[in-house]
Amino acid sequence: MRLGEAADESRRPLKWQARRQAIIDVSAAVFARGGYHATGITELCVANDLGKGALYHYIGSKEELLAAIHDRVMDEVMLGADRVAAAGGSPSAQLAMLGDELLDVIARYPDHVWVFLHEFPALTGERADQFRVRRREYERRVEATVQAGIDAGEFRPVDPRLTALAWLGMHNYTYLWLKPGGRLSARDVAKPFADIFIGGISV
Amino acid sequence: MRLGEAADESRRPLKWQARRQAIIDVSAAVFARGGYHATGITELCVANDLGKGALYHYIGSKEELLAAIHDRVMDEVMLGADRVAAAGGSPSAQLAMLGDELLDVIARYPDHVWVFLHEFPALTGERADQFRVRRREYERRVEATVQAGIDAGEFRPVDPRLTALAWLGMHNYTYLWLKPGGRLSARDVAKPFADIFIGGISV
Repeated sequence: MRLGEAADESRRPLKWQARRQAIIDVSAAVFARGGYHATGITELCVANDLGKGALYHYIGSKEELLAAIHDRVMDEVMLGADRVAAAGGSPSAQLAMLGDELLDVIARYPDHVWVFLHEFPALTGERADQFRVRRREYERRVEATVQAGIDAGEFRPVDPRLTALAWLGMHNYTYLWLKPGGRLSARDVAKPFADIFIGGISV
Repeated sequence: MRLGEAADESRRPLKWQARRQAIIDVSAAVFARGGYHATGITELCVANDLGKGALYHYIGSKEELLAAIHDRVMDEVMLGADRVAAAGGSPSAQLAMLGDELLDVIARYPDHVWVFLHEFPALTGERADQFRVRRREYERRVEATVQAGIDAGEFRPVDPRLTALAWLGMHNYTYLWLKPGGRLSARDVAKPFADIFIGGISV
């Protein structure tokens, strides 16, 4: 949820919320193909089969739509991280599960993730701040898992921040080639990635 | 070097070539800040202190400029890979050196690399094909190093392609936070990354 408008959103009828979500998903695909800056409101109207007034009624502004796409990704990523925390287990198992969950989001939301990773510099002001806060929150989960592994004597005394960044790069960058219906599923990739990464930091 | 125009380029006077290179470097910074699509020719003229006619004289078109930025990165990356091949050594040592060289390019050309990784979908036709070929050529060097490590009994029997993609993700993604004059130098990052990655695939 983002500041201000998120509270309003939850007070809207469910039908309105569902239509808004559908617009976010369709628009993610449009931005992923054509780029955020190059895509005009008219193009978004056509793709969503809506007039300009109706589109603005649901999304507020083009930048708000971009922020909603980012939130969609972060919501899913944080849900995954929460499931991992709830599942418990050793830090090694936790890190492997975090990879499973992250690759699953990347494989299920290729357009949203593309927009997320390519267009975040287009977010401005409070929206940019909030995006950084949410992204940092997830990074901290990864860092904390690495630190827990060090504390438990499972991992070498690596730099938790740098190690988290290495892990994030290895996993996030799959958005370039991990596609639904592709040769490899998220699960096919998660296991060997976990073997490399956890093997590489284990004592 | 790209098809066609590259041959012409090398026949131009050195002064012309140097001026063209300076325009490519300045424009990379402009694109990195404002985005390729959102940046107009007028903005590039102001940044390079040139009239429109003069700018086109050096760069041909905006897309040619984008291709030249991509080539600049790939030239440096391949030079690094060639140095590694010339240096020789075990597959583990080769992979560590490849990481050193790649992070060095990312740290030295932050704007070019940003444009490279964000704006490659804007390349079209033959330029897009050529970019894919060059990128694939580098990926093959990494894959071949992994395969050599497996053959030599240094690395586990991992999937060389998937392992190369994991390695590339881990290293490329540093473009988001590895900056000249930042807390960590390319060398500071390359060593722990090599320890994680090579440790993770070693027998």
